[in-house]
Amino acid sequence: MDTTVGIVGGGPAGLLLARLLRNAGIASVTLESRDRGYVESRQGAGILEQGTVDALRSAGVGERMDREGMTHDGIELRFDRRAHRLDLAALTGGRSVMVYPQAEVVKDLIARQLSQGDPLLFDAEVFAVEGADTDRPVVRFVQEGREQTLSCDCVVGCDGFRGVTRSAVPESVRTTYERVHPYSWLGILAEAPPVYDELIYAHSDRGFALAGMRSAMVSSLCLQVPNGTDPADWPDDRVWDELDARFALDSDPGWKLRRGPVVAKTVLPMRSSVTEPMRYGRVFLAGDAAHVVSPTGAKGLDLAASDVITLARALIHEQNTGSAELLDAYSDTCLRRVWRAEHFSYSMTTMLHTDPARSAFDTRLQLAQLNRLATSRHAAAELADNYTGLPIG
Amino acid sequence: MDTTVGIVGGGPAGLLLARLLRNAGIASVTLESRDRGYVESRQGAGILEQGTVDALRSAGVGERMDREGMTHDGIELRFDRRAHRLDLAALTGGRSVMVYPQAEVVKDLIARQLSQGDPLLFDAEVFAVEGADTDRPVVRFVQEGREQTLSCDCVVGCDGFRGVTRSAVPESVRTTYERVHPYSWLGILAEAPPVYDELIYAHSDRGFALAGMRSAMVSSLCLQVPNGTDPADWPDDRVWDELDARFALDSDPGWKLRRGPVVAKTVLPMRSSVTEPMRYGRVFLAGDAAHVVSPTGAKGLDLAASDVITLARALIHEQNTGSAELLDAYSDTCLRRVWRAEHFSYSMTTMLHTDPARSAFDTRLQLAQLNRLATSRHAAAELADNYTGLPIG
Repeated sequence: MDTTVGIVGGGPAGLLLARLLRNAGIASVTLESRDRGYVESRQGAGILEQGTVDALRSAGVGERMDREGMTHDGIELRFDRRAHRLDLAALTGGRSVMVYPQAEVVKDLIARQLSQGDPLLFDAEVFAVEGADTDRPVVRFVQEGREQTLSCDCVVGCDGFRGVTRSAVPESVRTTYERVHPYSWLGILAEAPPVYDELIYAHSDRGFALAGMRSAMVSSLCLQVPNGTDPADWPDDRVWDELDARFALDSDPGWKLRRGPVVAKTVLPMRSSVTEPMRYGRVFLAGDAAHVVSPTGAKGLDLAASDVITLARALIHEQNTGSAELLDAYSDTCLRRVWRAEHFSYSMTTMLHTDPARSAFDTRLQLAQLNRLATSRHAAAELADNYTGLPIG
Repeated sequence: MDTTVGIVGGGPAGLLLARLLRNAGIASVTLESRDRGYVESRQGAGILEQGTVDALRSAGVGERMDREGMTHDGIELRFDRRAHRLDLAALTGGRSVMVYPQAEVVKDLIARQLSQGDPLLFDAEVFAVEGADTDRPVVRFVQEGREQTLSCDCVVGCDGFRGVTRSAVPESVRTTYERVHPYSWLGILAEAPPVYDELIYAHSDRGFALAGMRSAMVSSLCLQVPNGTDPADWPDDRVWDELDARFALDSDPGWKLRRGPVVAKTVLPMRSSVTEPMRYGRVFLAGDAAHVVSPTGAKGLDLAASDVITLARALIHEQNTGSAELLDAYSDTCLRRVWRAEHFSYSMTTMLHTDPARSAFDTRLQLAQLNRLATSRHAAAELADNYTGLPIG
């Protein structure tokens, strides 16, 4: 099999890249190791920056998102049993975020790709990417028990944190930077209408909590829990009681979440990881294949989108001008934004969670930082700028 | 001996408070355990916020400061072998800082106090403060071998981190929050004209360095060193070579500090500490007696000044109206600003120093934070606001 761009991984990064390339007349083949149903039900962050929203629209998959997604102009911070709203739109000159689940983004992209796109193969398990330093790298994969090869001008690894494409960058030139936080998230999906229109980020001495939504009928909730927590130790009543305790307000002692059947409970580790460089020869890494960001701030999908937007621009630039200068700058361009997002997510995480090794001094510093956000326009605008998304490229 | 306000400690906090009270016709007696020469030569931070400068002028000691001090409208950050100036005045709408050594502030305050002030006793060693919860607390001290008592309406502890006044707040109501950083400063005074008009804060993989000035002829320099460092291990050549290495610029490889005789070399621990509450009955704590801030950002003297400005306002308010409401709010009012400054100093410290336990991931986060300061007006303005000083009260 032959194509121009071989895309390993049919998650949001790979699928969006295929669409952006197709719009510019660049051919691709996307290989996804799982089946369609699995990919379409994979959960992920559901908060889209303005730049991601714009890219999805220009990729031709904005219609359902614009109809069903929820635009959020603000977030609420709760700490010290008080509530403070950050008006994102006012702080950024009109930018907002879109709440639309990652699984829905993926469904829209797959439907579009299958109806009028380049080949998208499911159950196609890539086991090797070879020839990164040649003009014609090769992707080796197995489909229906048969070994096949895909030969391309370049290969893009969109195959996630455990993907194989990263190993095409030789260990001698590859560095991975990593941090694992000393706590995890218990992620909860519940069939209960969200009690509040916007997301609520809560810091309490019991730990972090997040109240959000997947839709007008489904709440998405998170509780900070110790590493190694078994979800079975969190029966539904305990989940709701703990959420109510962490969101408690002195000004409104009766404030409670609306309860409903819990339909999913998952423990997520809080890992951050960056692999450099994001390019070796004719192989490029994008999204989780190159970097994982701790979930506070919900930057994972947005970073994947900004990587492939940057890469699509560079490939289109090469096609139109013959110049590889943007491709040569790809890794540095992406890594500037990646490290900015890593720092933002780290700041949000350490500001809002309770470290088991914290001192009373550390807790006071966290409250001082949160108080500053509630009183300083510069501090609030800096958070809002990062939250709604920085320029791409 | 009798007075209205008994002030324990004749450092900048106590001396400034005595002046502010005197201006309002409130009598005080200041007791200083050391002799005048010792107090006048004690070194400290020499960067004054606008609010401190204004208070010194209104206390009648602005004349020499305005003549000999140096107004700084900016600072320089160096990291990744690059230089970036933060224009404090432009970022804050015109605020700046004044470089004028703490020892000179103290000399000016002492001269004024002795020529036309309330009593200021040197070599008066306070050993007990009693009756905090009565209407008439008593300070017991020894002068020229003779035990004496000072009876007052209230006592203010301006006697520093190791002062005795703090113990007048019973342990049952007192909490101390503390952090010691895993590195120290080697502070250097050199008879060498500063090479640059403004302060330079440098982060390098060798550690933090700071280039400042005491005057147009005397440089004040700092190097991050391990805890437990012996200054004898740092002969002058090693000091200058290390400074040049940490300030090195790719754009100007010949950039060097001007060398001159090193006249002082001291190792300073990086301690942060806050005692709450700052008031018990008729005893008040101010400045280092209540809180110590790590030296990055130079907030020690400014916090002492804002404490006594707040206290003077409250005492004057009580005298004029009979209401103790501002005195009752003193501790909470000061602590809000204290914790803000603690968080600012902590942020500056952790952003610029190299933690011996850091990972490569942590170092990348530091560079991401520094790069953000160099590119985001909000991030830079947030630093500039804190650096030039937040409102008092």
